[in-house]
Amino acid sequence: MKTLNVELGERSYPIYIGTDLLSDKLLFEKHIRATQVCIVTNDTLADSYAKQVAAALSEFQLTTVVLPDGESFKTLDTLQRIFDQLLEERHNRTTTLIAVGGGVIGDMTGFAAACYQRGVDFIQVPTTLLSQVDSSVGGKTGVNHPAGKNMIGAFYQPQAVTIDLSVLKTLPARELSAGLAEVIKYGLIWDHSFFEWLELNISGLMACDLALMEYAIQQSCATKAEVVAADEREGGLRAILNLGHTFGHAIETHQGYGTWLHGEAVGTGMVVAAELSQVRGYISEQFVIRIRELISAAGLPTHVPSEMSNTEFLQLMAVDKKVLDGQLRLILNVGHGKSAIFDDITEESVKVALDRCRKEI
Amino acid sequence: MKTLNVELGERSYPIYIGTDLLSDKLLFEKHIRATQVCIVTNDTLADSYAKQVAAALSEFQLTTVVLPDGESFKTLDTLQRIFDQLLEERHNRTTTLIAVGGGVIGDMTGFAAACYQRGVDFIQVPTTLLSQVDSSVGGKTGVNHPAGKNMIGAFYQPQAVTIDLSVLKTLPARELSAGLAEVIKYGLIWDHSFFEWLELNISGLMACDLALMEYAIQQSCATKAEVVAADEREGGLRAILNLGHTFGHAIETHQGYGTWLHGEAVGTGMVVAAELSQVRGYISEQFVIRIRELISAAGLPTHVPSEMSNTEFLQLMAVDKKVLDGQLRLILNVGHGKSAIFDDITEESVKVALDRCRKEI
Repeated sequence: MKTLNVELGERSYPIYIGTDLLSDKLLFEKHIRATQVCIVTNDTLADSYAKQVAAALSEFQLTTVVLPDGESFKTLDTLQRIFDQLLEERHNRTTTLIAVGGGVIGDMTGFAAACYQRGVDFIQVPTTLLSQVDSSVGGKTGVNHPAGKNMIGAFYQPQAVTIDLSVLKTLPARELSAGLAEVIKYGLIWDHSFFEWLELNISGLMACDLALMEYAIQQSCATKAEVVAADEREGGLRAILNLGHTFGHAIETHQGYGTWLHGEAVGTGMVVAAELSQVRGYISEQFVIRIRELISAAGLPTHVPSEMSNTEFLQLMAVDKKVLDGQLRLILNVGHGKSAIFDDITEESVKVALDRCRKEI
Repeated sequence: MKTLNVELGERSYPIYIGTDLLSDKLLFEKHIRATQVCIVTNDTLADSYAKQVAAALSEFQLTTVVLPDGESFKTLDTLQRIFDQLLEERHNRTTTLIAVGGGVIGDMTGFAAACYQRGVDFIQVPTTLLSQVDSSVGGKTGVNHPAGKNMIGAFYQPQAVTIDLSVLKTLPARELSAGLAEVIKYGLIWDHSFFEWLELNISGLMACDLALMEYAIQQSCATKAEVVAADEREGGLRAILNLGHTFGHAIETHQGYGTWLHGEAVGTGMVVAAELSQVRGYISEQFVIRIRELISAAGLPTHVPSEMSNTEFLQLMAVDKKVLDGQLRLILNVGHGKSAIFDDITEESVKVALDRCRKEI
């Protein structure tokens, strides 16, 4: 087992990466404050991973909340069900919530922990590649609103993140690809040698080689931990983690949450961002081609939905959280393993980049 | 105008106390970060106080959210309306929410600010005595759940608290009394000379003498600020601010939110706490009589609802946030101007105290 630390002063916490951690009783107990524990999971995982964790914690007063599976249920209404059950089973301020699931479960459980009795402990047990390398680390929690993703939430750090590599073996191929989108992102924004390692090893990763996977997850979490430690509440630097996300969120909102997987939308969004970076002269056409090829080799879409007009893109991007006072702000590639935030982006240049990401008909 | 400071490091903020502050443009502008402002108020105040504040802020991009008036609307559903309107009018992360109203509006606006886009600025403009001396200071925000008060919320500090004394002139007598309950509380938990000042001046306060009111509010806010600065997240000391509240919350829950005013329930709750303190031998019968008389002179009830059994009390108190692992924890008077938290309280002693607070039939 490898341990990374997210350094956030009194809110610091460890990330454990290894195999068979779901039933590691002692590892959980280290981070459970008192006698009450509440596992939050979804109906797809309730009988598998959540049950494994529950078995390890049989000595606690244990509640399991089973939510419907999918991004479309990441709402205040679903959150209310967590609160209902916690109150029904009389969980108090010393309880510990454990999120067993992907990003949707992690984000909702974290937000529930942030709000329940004004804040209780929680542990992240991400069971998809995407949530292992992205949403489980960094303390962003929340739910969606019909008008936009993650519009309601909190910055709230877990006590620990437990990443069990064993779960990847049964992850559907589409979700593995979605996770690789965020992995590739770290290569693009921060670490070009990791990008080159990914180019070499993408087929092994697609085949879910656990040794390769462990390295990829470790590099991804280490980068995320470093960026988050430098800027916990997204005052500046942290925004680079959103490479491709403003375009991606627009796609997800337009298509209805859950139609495109988040990672798929981010994959395509990173291609649009790369094209826009090239339009502005920050990176070469050659590098854009490498980016496109790696994203495509990861089994991700590289074209925007054909029925989605440039105007629709710009409208949906205008309500994204990263838009300040009507001014579009986007993360762009500014070289190999380098990225930066820009607020002087013209709609015209965005349209050019989008058009380069349309399938020829 | 008097200014007090709540010392919380980088989350420190001022409390302004004076007359005609609702239209003090410059005072507001000092704490507004950018160009967007959203006033949150209720339908009783929309045409009066909220309009005054809006007039002072006409140069900003201004949204006003008008919520239904009353504790029964302090729910996640009502909160959703704030989010809906903020998103509809495209408020971004630099917006500032301004709560114009009593504790319900303040708690909900603060919680909305804590959650909207994971946290935006907010200013408290409390327009009832209760909210001026209590809920607007200290950063506790949240909404109710059918199973208990304030079960969902956050610790989130405002940028400033603006207390306009002028509003007290039109406050209904019942709400004035409800506010005095919390004022008396500060005398009981912290400052016996203030308790004695209140005994001398209670009739002037009941007549809403603004000079007396200013002193009472200042003393109350100063005590609250001192306690909160010592213990922002209620690890220990801060719990003394809950004197009478566990009994009070049980009454409010039993009667349905809004039937008893919060201050009325706390007034009676403090009488029960005083009796319980006397049962345990911490204070004299004489002091209990003085407490009862002051609370009664403030126009507050001193008897528990006759239809509410001791068993019902104990059941409702068991889900209160201050109950840890099934063990009742209560704040008791331990002398003049002194209080402390106890977790070794027997149900038997609670029943004795409750019975002493029943009207003879």
